[in-house]
Amino acid sequence: MKNRDASHTPVTVIGLGLMGQALAGAFLRDGYPTTVWNRTAAKADQLVAQGAKLADSARDAVVASPLVVVCVSDYDAVHELLDPVGEVLDGRVLVNLTSGTSAQARETAEWAARQGSTYLDGAIMAIPEAIGTADAVIVCSGPRSAFDLHEPDLKSLAAETTHLGDDHSLSAVYEAAVLSLMWSIGNGFLQGAAMLGAAGVDAATFAPLAKKGIETVTGWLPGYAQQIDDGTYPPLDATIDTHLAAMDHLIDESEFLGVNAEFPRLIKALTDRAVAEGHGDNGYAALIEQFRKPS
Amino acid sequence: MKNRDASHTPVTVIGLGLMGQALAGAFLRDGYPTTVWNRTAAKADQLVAQGAKLADSARDAVVASPLVVVCVSDYDAVHELLDPVGEVLDGRVLVNLTSGTSAQARETAEWAARQGSTYLDGAIMAIPEAIGTADAVIVCSGPRSAFDLHEPDLKSLAAETTHLGDDHSLSAVYEAAVLSLMWSIGNGFLQGAAMLGAAGVDAATFAPLAKKGIETVTGWLPGYAQQIDDGTYPPLDATIDTHLAAMDHLIDESEFLGVNAEFPRLIKALTDRAVAEGHGDNGYAALIEQFRKPS
Ligand SMILES: NC(=O)c1ccc[n+]([C@@H]2O[C@H](COP(=O)([O-])OP(=O)(O)OC[C@H]3O[C@@H](n4cnc5c(N)ncnc54)[C@H](OP(=O)(O)O)[C@@H]3O)[C@@H](O)[C@H]2O)c1
Ligand SMILES: NC(=O)c1ccc[n+]([C@@H]2O[C@H](COP(=O)([O-])OP(=O)(O)OC[C@H]3O[C@@H](n4cnc5c(N)ncnc54)[C@H](OP(=O)(O)O)[C@@H]3O)[C@@H](O)[C@H]2O)c1
Repeated sequence: MKNRDASHTPVTVIGLGLMGQALAGAFLRDGYPTTVWNRTAAKADQLVAQGAKLADSARDAVVASPLVVVCVSDYDAVHELLDPVGEVLDGRVLVNLTSGTSAQARETAEWAARQGSTYLDGAIMAIPEAIGTADAVIVCSGPRSAFDLHEPDLKSLAAETTHLGDDHSLSAVYEAAVLSLMWSIGNGFLQGAAMLGAAGVDAATFAPLAKKGIETVTGWLPGYAQQIDDGTYPPLDATIDTHLAAMDHLIDESEFLGVNAEFPRLIKALTDRAVAEGHGDNGYAALIEQFRKPS
Repeated sequence: MKNRDASHTPVTVIGLGLMGQALAGAFLRDGYPTTVWNRTAAKADQLVAQGAKLADSARDAVVASPLVVVCVSDYDAVHELLDPVGEVLDGRVLVNLTSGTSAQARETAEWAARQGSTYLDGAIMAIPEAIGTADAVIVCSGPRSAFDLHEPDLKSLAAETTHLGDDHSLSAVYEAAVLSLMWSIGNGFLQGAAMLGAAGVDAATFAPLAKKGIETVTGWLPGYAQQIDDGTYPPLDATIDTHLAAMDHLIDESEFLGVNAEFPRLIKALTDRAVAEGHGDNGYAALIEQFRKPS
C-alpha cells in the first residue's frame, strides 16, 4: 500500500457491485481521490463514508478523472452505461475490468478508439476480499504505454499486474483459460470426493491428500509448458499409454461406485485419440495436440 | 532414512519395473535385507550390485521374507505370478502396490485370505524418482494391525504413509480419485494453453499465471470439503449462477479460437443441471450432488 499523497491521479470507479466496491475501497485506502458511480446509488454509501465522492451521473463520474475503471456484470452493461457518454471519454484512459469474451473486448476497444479514449481491457483473477492484497492478479491488454503509465495505480488493486500484450483480446482469453483450469480442479476434486464418498470416506479426509496430488502436478506444468512450446513430448512422469491404463480404472471405479463418469470418459476419449495418432510413447503434454483441434 | 540395522525385517520385492526397482532400491538404502524377483531377471542386476539377493523363483522370493511387496503392471500379472505359489504366502504379509480397481483389490484380498496371508492393498502416489523421499505418498487399506506393524518399513518407501481403513477397496478408490484430480489439472492447463496458444501467447507465459490460479482454488478445497460433508453450500467464492455466466465465455472463446470445447461444454452441462435443481444461489461445492449421480 502507498502513503496518502496529494499527487495521486484522481480515479473513477463505475459499477459498485461486490467487485467494484472492493476496487474503489482499495483506491481509497491508498489515498487516491476517488469518484464513484453506480446504477443503484445506495451501494456507494460505505465508500462515501470512507471519503469517496459520489457523482450525480455516469457522465459526471467520467469527467471527474483521467483514469476511469469500469467493472459491471457484463459488456452489455458497459455499453448501456458508457455509450451515451462516449464523447466525455475523449482523452481519458478507460480500464474495463468486466468479464467477457475477446470478441467483446476487441469490439469495445474499437468503440473506445472512436471516442478518442485510450482503452485497456483487463481481467481480475481474485475474489473481492483479495483485492489490494498479494493474492490478487490483474492482467491487462491494450497499449503498453497506457499500462506503464497506470500500472502504479493498478498496483493498489492487485500486487501482481501483468501486461499481456497490445492485442486487446488477450486478457479475456487469459481469464477464460485460468477459469477453465480452476473449474477443472474444482471438478476433479468433486469427482474424487464423490467416489470416495460412495466408498464411505469423507471429503475432509480427501482434502489434504488431494492437495498433495495438486502440488505434484503443479510441479510438472512448467515442464509441460516447455514441451508444448518446443513441440516435443518425451515422458516426464509416465507415458500416455501408462496413463490410459489407469484411466480405464477410473471409469470402471466410477461406474462401479455409481457416481458420474462423464469427466472420466472424456478424459479417456481425448487420450485415446492421442494414442491413435501415435502419441502412446509420449508424455502427457502431447495431449495439447488434441486440445488444439476444434470439436 | 534409517541406519543400517541387522534387526530390520527381511523384505521381498516382486516386480522390478520402474517402480519395483525404486521400491527395492529404497529398502536397500535403508539397510533392509532385500530379496528381489522379476520375470525378466536382468532388471535385478543393478539391485544385486547394491546388495539385493536375487531369488531363483517367485516361490523362493516369497519364502525369503515375512513381508512381501508386489508391484507389477496389473492384477492379472499379480495373479499369474502368485496364484501358483499361494500356499507359501501362508503366515506372511502381502502388500500389493499394483494399480487396479477396488473390485480387483477385494477379490485379491479374498484370495490372499484363503492362502492364510495377511493382505494390504496399497497405492503409490509418486513417480519412481520420488520413492523414498518426502514427496512420496503410499496409502494402504486392509487390516490396521498389519499396517501398524509394517508402517515403519513402508516409511522407507514414502515419507507419508496413510491407512485409509480396513476395507481393502479403499486404496484403489483413493488412487483413482487422486489420478482423476491430477488429470483434471493437466487437462485444464492444456485447455488454457491451447486457447492462449491460438491467441499467440506461449505456454511458458501461461505456466506461472496458471500456478497462481491453482493455488487459489487449492485454498478453497478444505472449505468445499467441509460443505460436502455438511451438505450445505453457502457461496465461499462466487455463486454457481456467476460461474455459469463465465462458463459461457469459456465455450464461446474456445469455439472462437478454434480449439477443442468438449471440456468447457461438459463443465457447463453439469453446472446447468445444478442450476436446474435450484443450486444457482449456492457455492461451487453444491455441484457434488451432480457428481454423485450415475451417468
Ligand atoms: N465477484 C468476483 O468474485 C469476481 C471475480 C473476478 C471477476 N469478476 C467480474 O467483475 C464483474 C463485476 O462482478 P461483481 O461481483 O461486482 O458483480 P455484482 O456484485 O453482481 O455487481 C454487478 C454490477 O454491475 C452493475 N450493472 C449490471 N447491469 C447494469 C446495467 N445494465 N447498467 C448499469 N449497471 C449495471 C450493477 O449495478 P446495480 O448495483 O445497480 O445492480 C453492479 O454494480 C463481473 O464481470 C465479474 O465477472 C468478479
Ligand atoms: N511408474 C510410475 O510412475 C507409477 C506411479 C504410481 C503407480 N505405479 C504402478 O506401479 C505398477 C508398476 O509400474 P511400473 O512403472 O513399474 O511398470 P513397468 O515399468 O512397466 O513394469 C511392469 C512390471 O510388471 C511385470 N510384469 C508385467 N506382466 C507380468 C506378468 N504377466 N508376469 C510377471 N511379471 C509381469 C514386469 O516384468 P518384466 O520386467 O518381466 O516385463 C515389470 O516388472 C503399476 O501398477 C503402476 O500403475 C507406477
